[in-house]
Amino acid sequence: MTEPLEKFFEFLRFASISTDPEYAKDVRNCADWLVSHLQGIGLKTELHETAGHPLVVARNEHVEGKKTVLIYGHYDVQPVDPVELWDSPPFEPEIRDGKIWARGSTDNKGQMFAHICGVEEMLKRDGELPVNLIFLFEGEEEVGSQNLKPFLEQHKDELACDIIAVSDTGMVAQGVPTMGYGLRGIAACEVILKGPSGDLHSGVYGGAVANPATAVAQLVATLHEEYGKVAVEGFYDHVRPLEEWEREMWAKVPNTSDDDIRQQTGAAEVYGEAGYSSAERLWARPTAEVNGIGGGYQGEGTKTVLPAEAFAKLTFRLVPDQDPADIMQKVKSHLERHLPAGVEMELEIGHDGKAYYCDPHSPYGQAAQRALKQAFGADPVLIREGGSIPIIQDMKEILGVDTLMLGLALPDCQIHAPNENFYVENFEAGIRLNQELLRQIGSSEN
Amino acid sequence: MTEPLEKFFEFLRFASISTDPEYAKDVRNCADWLVSHLQGIGLKTELHETAGHPLVVARNEHVEGKKTVLIYGHYDVQPVDPVELWDSPPFEPEIRDGKIWARGSTDNKGQMFAHICGVEEMLKRDGELPVNLIFLFEGEEEVGSQNLKPFLEQHKDELACDIIAVSDTGMVAQGVPTMGYGLRGIAACEVILKGPSGDLHSGVYGGAVANPATAVAQLVATLHEEYGKVAVEGFYDHVRPLEEWEREMWAKVPNTSDDDIRQQTGAAEVYGEAGYSSAERLWARPTAEVNGIGGGYQGEGTKTVLPAEAFAKLTFRLVPDQDPADIMQKVKSHLERHLPAGVEMELEIGHDGKAYYCDPHSPYGQAAQRALKQAFGADPVLIREGGSIPIIQDMKEILGVDTLMLGLALPDCQIHAPNENFYVENFEAGIRLNQELLRQIGSSEN
Repeated sequence: MTEPLEKFFEFLRFASISTDPEYAKDVRNCADWLVSHLQGIGLKTELHETAGHPLVVARNEHVEGKKTVLIYGHYDVQPVDPVELWDSPPFEPEIRDGKIWARGSTDNKGQMFAHICGVEEMLKRDGELPVNLIFLFEGEEEVGSQNLKPFLEQHKDELACDIIAVSDTGMVAQGVPTMGYGLRGIAACEVILKGPSGDLHSGVYGGAVANPATAVAQLVATLHEEYGKVAVEGFYDHVRPLEEWEREMWAKVPNTSDDDIRQQTGAAEVYGEAGYSSAERLWARPTAEVNGIGGGYQGEGTKTVLPAEAFAKLTFRLVPDQDPADIMQKVKSHLERHLPAGVEMELEIGHDGKAYYCDPHSPYGQAAQRALKQAFGADPVLIREGGSIPIIQDMKEILGVDTLMLGLALPDCQIHAPNENFYVENFEAGIRLNQELLRQIGSSEN
Repeated sequence: MTEPLEKFFEFLRFASISTDPEYAKDVRNCADWLVSHLQGIGLKTELHETAGHPLVVARNEHVEGKKTVLIYGHYDVQPVDPVELWDSPPFEPEIRDGKIWARGSTDNKGQMFAHICGVEEMLKRDGELPVNLIFLFEGEEEVGSQNLKPFLEQHKDELACDIIAVSDTGMVAQGVPTMGYGLRGIAACEVILKGPSGDLHSGVYGGAVANPATAVAQLVATLHEEYGKVAVEGFYDHVRPLEEWEREMWAKVPNTSDDDIRQQTGAAEVYGEAGYSSAERLWARPTAEVNGIGGGYQGEGTKTVLPAEAFAKLTFRLVPDQDPADIMQKVKSHLERHLPAGVEMELEIGHDGKAYYCDPHSPYGQAAQRALKQAFGADPVLIREGGSIPIIQDMKEILGVDTLMLGLALPDCQIHAPNENFYVENFEAGIRLNQELLRQIGSSEN
């Protein structure tokens, strides 16, 4: 086994499950090991205590005039339940069929350790890096990164940089280098409709007072026109249209055809806004989703209750240039205007976050594409993603800097599930990618 | 204390809670006491074992040529929790403010024991009854009367009768004798909509596959036009229109104004089909009610899930002459026709029961009205009820006989709740009512 792989296996053996207090010591040991490893390869490394698990920050000798690159990663992992479904123990990594099998092998220890190995190789070979480097590794990504934002605010000056790189997203297929340049934003709310003061017998009172479970269905049904098009007035006002190059690019991205979506989701058919492909619907079009609906009897069989209240939990996925506060105001007006008679509405506004977009044709974007091409020997595809990654938006807002998303996670890598795995090939490509990236950024014309 | 009251208190002291196995012995002791009491007043009485709690059947010496009346009641009671809310112990009856306070005082021991006392007085005074009498008392009404139907079927011949009387419904207000002549029927089903094979991340896949929680809302919203009018095609085809006398009668029934309904339900406003009063909506118009709706995340806050499935539990309250099977067929067609794209539907058909209607102007109906007027010294009101009482439909179907519903339960009697109570005045009126009823039926011109 190569030395990078041996060290990687050491890293994987820590059961650094951040959500479970029983593993707090393992998380701590993992952070300590990381500090010692980073110091060992020649980086000035500090462990920062937080209200939760510690952060690790490492940097090379910074030189005036060089570009500064911040590389973010996380050393904490998801729980392993149901552990009986694993083919080999989750914290005893092994290689089978060209893949490394272990919890965290892809998410995110593998992807972040490839960057560490790249830096180590470069330092060994060249004695220096082509950039000023900051590694920022947290231990709480899987539990919401709650202590990262305050840390960024408190250490804004020390973390000042020109560009950020993160390898914590997906690669569309094996051998297809992938650069992410956009994420959808989000705006969440919960609608609660109230009718009678307590649950009533639906025989005794049904027909003479409004039923909140019926009303919540009627209200939710006003949110869409046909095929998922959102009916909230003004919802699409600020949606940035897809550019022609994006449609052309995405049409060639593997694993995003209607057949692929059917296979991935198990849905009998795809369903969405007319005039858009599945990739376009997922990455560039906003949605209104019901994440939860409830009211009345939830058990087996029948109970003839007319419920006192009912709810719908809604999230709106947003795209550039929708503003979450503006959207929530429009949603609120819509819900008020369409509120069925006979019930009262409470609206709880939840969290939100802007959509993220970073021009892939910027000098740094082009540098990243060249690095991907070098590392994988193939032209990269440029994609957006449908989900939200709040820390990327946080870093944009606090540090004022864009993030290059250079994901190495394959569709079948089983993150958050049993039998998580990472191709050895991708680990090695990641090591090359890191070095090419630092080189390309170091020499880019920004 | 009068002798009837003393005996009534003995009856109330049994904690005959049918749902709780811990009280099985009390239920049994209560049945045994009842047998012995009925024998004591001169009735031929039998205890019938069932798969659950026993039934008690008693009868006088039957004479050819006399009308046969079956009086149904139940000696089991609801649980007493939360017992700390009772002002006096639930199984130590006492009289305060003209009311008897105890579990079962109204539901149903008080109402059925008034009938027993009426019969006792008549037998003592006259040595015989003007009718052939069958008392049928069960111990499982509060747990669904599961063993009554098979008993009726097995003992159909011995239970043959001309008319049935039940005092287990409501009186609209104190001093207002009330005869019920109708109940709504029911047809139940559960709609389950299925989309993806498992829950999805609503960021990653939202917009490209249908969301079953959204779809269930859209489907449920097709069930109604405005203000509760049911939109299922043909739903009203066989609805018997209200008769003019009913509308006139109901307009005068106390405790059914819009204000009353608001107060009873705590709803901010009444809501229902245009052109009908609240009483008419409850008693003579069919409904489609959502008894439960659910899908996706049900906990606190937000979880960005696109659920694999969602459900709606529906019941349709039916009126004469709607047929439950016909209605369910129409509902099924409606749901299939309006099923949103992108999801698959499973429809589970539940229980049903026809609406009950017994002409109040029939000779027996008129006899009952005369008896109510005599017993209370006031003209009775004629009402229907919004709920369903399956045993009344069962008796109609198996014995082929109508039921006179002569309820003595007042709106504030707290059945099924702490501090259940029964006016001494109503107990006494019930004793008179029984005797008048038997007399009127005995001499009616059927």
